[in-house]
Amino acid sequence: MSLGISYKKTGRAFGVGLAMLLGSVAAPTLAEEPTLNKDAFESSKQLYFERCAGCHGVLRKGATGKSLEPLVETKNADGTVTESGTLKLGQERLEKIIAWGTEGGMNNFSDVMSEDEISNMATYIQMEPPKPPEMSLEQMMATRKVYVEPEDYPSEPLHGRNWENFFVVIERDVGKVAVIDGDTKEVLAHIPTGYAVHVLKASEHHKLEEPENPGRFWYTMGRDGKMTKIDLWQNPENMLVAEVTIGYDARDVAVSGDGKYVIGGAYWPPHFAIVDAETMEPKKVVSTRGYNVDGDYVEEARVAAIYTTPNEPTWIVAVKELGQLWQVDYSDLDNLRIDKIDSAKFLHDGFFDPTGRYFQIAANASNKMVVVDTETHKLEAMIDTAPLPHPGPGANWDDPNCGPVAGTTHLGEGTVTVWGNDPEGRPDDAWKVCYEVETDGPGLFIRTHPESDYIWADQTKHPEPEVQQSVQVIDKATGEIVKTIQITEEEGNVAVHFEFNQDGSEVWVSKWNRSTSKEANGEIVIYDAKTLEEIGRVKGLFAPTGKFNVYNRSNHVT
Amino acid sequence: MSLGISYKKTGRAFGVGLAMLLGSVAAPTLAEEPTLNKDAFESSKQLYFERCAGCHGVLRKGATGKSLEPLVETKNADGTVTESGTLKLGQERLEKIIAWGTEGGMNNFSDVMSEDEISNMATYIQMEPPKPPEMSLEQMMATRKVYVEPEDYPSEPLHGRNWENFFVVIERDVGKVAVIDGDTKEVLAHIPTGYAVHVLKASEHHKLEEPENPGRFWYTMGRDGKMTKIDLWQNPENMLVAEVTIGYDARDVAVSGDGKYVIGGAYWPPHFAIVDAETMEPKKVVSTRGYNVDGDYVEEARVAAIYTTPNEPTWIVAVKELGQLWQVDYSDLDNLRIDKIDSAKFLHDGFFDPTGRYFQIAANASNKMVVVDTETHKLEAMIDTAPLPHPGPGANWDDPNCGPVAGTTHLGEGTVTVWGNDPEGRPDDAWKVCYEVETDGPGLFIRTHPESDYIWADQTKHPEPEVQQSVQVIDKATGEIVKTIQITEEEGNVAVHFEFNQDGSEVWVSKWNRSTSKEANGEIVIYDAKTLEEIGRVKGLFAPTGKFNVYNRSNHVT
Repeated sequence: MSLGISYKKTGRAFGVGLAMLLGSVAAPTLAEEPTLNKDAFESSKQLYFERCAGCHGVLRKGATGKSLEPLVETKNADGTVTESGTLKLGQERLEKIIAWGTEGGMNNFSDVMSEDEISNMATYIQMEPPKPPEMSLEQMMATRKVYVEPEDYPSEPLHGRNWENFFVVIERDVGKVAVIDGDTKEVLAHIPTGYAVHVLKASEHHKLEEPENPGRFWYTMGRDGKMTKIDLWQNPENMLVAEVTIGYDARDVAVSGDGKYVIGGAYWPPHFAIVDAETMEPKKVVSTRGYNVDGDYVEEARVAAIYTTPNEPTWIVAVKELGQLWQVDYSDLDNLRIDKIDSAKFLHDGFFDPTGRYFQIAANASNKMVVVDTETHKLEAMIDTAPLPHPGPGANWDDPNCGPVAGTTHLGEGTVTVWGNDPEGRPDDAWKVCYEVETDGPGLFIRTHPESDYIWADQTKHPEPEVQQSVQVIDKATGEIVKTIQITEEEGNVAVHFEFNQDGSEVWVSKWNRSTSKEANGEIVIYDAKTLEEIGRVKGLFAPTGKFNVYNRSNHVT
Repeated sequence: MSLGISYKKTGRAFGVGLAMLLGSVAAPTLAEEPTLNKDAFESSKQLYFERCAGCHGVLRKGATGKSLEPLVETKNADGTVTESGTLKLGQERLEKIIAWGTEGGMNNFSDVMSEDEISNMATYIQMEPPKPPEMSLEQMMATRKVYVEPEDYPSEPLHGRNWENFFVVIERDVGKVAVIDGDTKEVLAHIPTGYAVHVLKASEHHKLEEPENPGRFWYTMGRDGKMTKIDLWQNPENMLVAEVTIGYDARDVAVSGDGKYVIGGAYWPPHFAIVDAETMEPKKVVSTRGYNVDGDYVEEARVAAIYTTPNEPTWIVAVKELGQLWQVDYSDLDNLRIDKIDSAKFLHDGFFDPTGRYFQIAANASNKMVVVDTETHKLEAMIDTAPLPHPGPGANWDDPNCGPVAGTTHLGEGTVTVWGNDPEGRPDDAWKVCYEVETDGPGLFIRTHPESDYIWADQTKHPEPEVQQSVQVIDKATGEIVKTIQITEEEGNVAVHFEFNQDGSEVWVSKWNRSTSKEANGEIVIYDAKTLEEIGRVKGLFAPTGKFNVYNRSNHVT
């Protein structure tokens, strides 16, 4: 599998590529086992968890990133054994790879880790990975905290604001989410959550059984497995109403269509937990360890993402390393129906088509978008794309040639891929690439709005600051880039993630202060969705990344 | 949890009960770690697998048997820690327990293991359990052997015999099954299979899609995970047509209703594998590791038993330690639907009601019979019973008071429990105990036939030879024992398991030569089903245990 990455504008000299390193190294003599003292081991373990485990796994067997096991023996066809692994690479080369990154898609960490940290990390990954413990339902229950009892919840919004145009914003590196009034642009609160919230979700309008007040309650998932419940009808100082921890390493969360359950997905232990959405009491845990689509057992089969299906009483659970989408029916937890839909590795993030029937998700290591029919609980299609698709919350719109389409950015290169997604109305165009747009660099997020003429794409994964800081605006009518906007020139700041406001007249972009992320000098830059001119900045934010407009997210505006 | 066992007729002095031992032992001083030389370790490992792992688990965390981990630390409410485990019991006491058995239900092994073997085993279980390896789909595929290609299968029976009255008989300790002509009582073949076949299954008549020639092909599952395919239309020397291995430790197998797939369930790795029934190519593996009904993660979550549902395109997979019945839909393997039905621990074996809709299975450590509605894929009922129900293939009949009923023997005491099982016709009696019959000792199997007036129950688990060698015959009309038949007085031989012949006129009982099991001096004793008189013996069998009449098993005669 090649994860080749290509850049249009790079003038930068990269470190020696990992592939070349692996191919050309003579095995070093292992004078002694690499060791760290207890403090260095513990701080490296924590840093590995925060910075490395996402791609390489806590057991270091690799996923989006390569295996980082100390010694891997591969039997060749002729009976000989080839040894590889971090011990074979050795301290010096590992330090260089961590500092400089690789052409294989690994970030450079020289600007976020000290020299000592890099040195210790290079040693740490030559040692056997410590296996983290399990977590039982009883242990989860013991972590539950209730700040406001459900019977004390207000019966109407206490602050008198237009809460449906609130934005809830991840403040990544300080373990908080900010609540911003989208009408007045005031930052109302910085609510404590789990560490480095990846995603948050609200109850949404649903075809079968409407939840009460869609968009009122928000549920966050921290990297540390802590789920918090936020009530936007409370006064800002009381919005955090309850929390519970469902794992040691986690990413995503979703609410059931009827609003009665929240599901949290963990990286470790590899499982999902179903929690009572009112009380935050955990009700059920289901392991995701299993056999991948190749028939190999995977202990670290992580829950990459979870979504509520708008038309069915189910969630879609993306089990990353298995290449399987599990459609989990929440209508009877004691007789839990799961449909295990085989697709491709490694599943990441996705979004629904406008009908809510089809779910479109990236299998990034396979360079595919995978489509599931949530009505039949079956695989609908797989679409070959450019390297490493990553749509984030995704974008759907109407194309003059292909009809209804959707698009994704890519981690692997500066491309936006657009495909037809209306198998009923436009069967000839459905699940085929309509066109591709060449941008300046690989990105994380794409976004549009039904009222907007444009699609926005970021380029956060490009190594050059001026590209990282610029976003692309694509015209829906022509499929061409109409404007490149550099949102900042400040060193250590990048542009990431978009969200429209309630009526679609504004586009909010994060100025993520990556290098000073624990200070409140991050910003959200707001653009007029028609003129594409800057109209304001929300300042005083800590590492703002993902943003979620209450109305858009609870009304499936994608 | 108390696994108290009671006997009516015992005069035997048991060894000191395990419960008492555990309660009263002062912690021994551990002078040194128990060790074995390599040969003793390997032979103990093999013997443990053969004799102990079934109840205690390969990881020794316990199931039907107690945990045999070396050291278990339990935190008390006051913060102190209590240590227990095999290291605390020590060499001498462990040897006694292995030799004599316990009141907790453990067999005595003094007659099947030598003194050296017992001594080594007592040491082995004080050492850390070695964790067995995983097995991938590719590894399974590499074990496949084809002896007769499907295109060479005969189009009619080659031997001209009444193959629908054949009996296929497990010859437990020599890794074979015997094929016996039920009309002539001739032993036609001893077919090599996996080690200690636990169960074998044929294709059965099915409501939705009939398989070709139900009962023709038989599939065995060995304790060693080897599945063999037997074609009863071949001449005896060619009946073994293919094999494949799906695990290192396994128990059960089932055929899909349409005859197209075979499913094999493993103890280790904890998983099931779906295999093409024609070619014996493995197609899919599904892990059963997961969270039990208490919310605790169980790595060794073993597949105890698997059954084809007569009316649905599904199998029932009993995941022993989870207390869950997984209803697995085989109609689309790429989008595999599984309904995980919560019930009780530890699931063992079961059978269908006469309509084929309700599946009745023992949760033996919970002293319950669990009932699943395979039409709704949901738990129907749980029935409290005497200790450790164990129905084997079970028995259904009509009771004058309760209407349609079913019954089970018990491992825990000499009782046959009978319950109503017709929720449509007799809702007031359904899933309630109708009556109990007191027998002389705990047993493994119960059996009847629609043409018979009697129910037969064995007493194999009683320690006294004369009780082990005797079976009970119960009158369906009165619920009373009408005859106790001692089938043999030979030392080291016990009576076990029943099967009727095709027309229900004969009852076949195994004389299992437990102490000389690798010699061909086992027998099947045949009784007239009406007069209850012995009418013949089939001799020359190796350790005969389970018996399967082709017609009865493929026509749901239970």
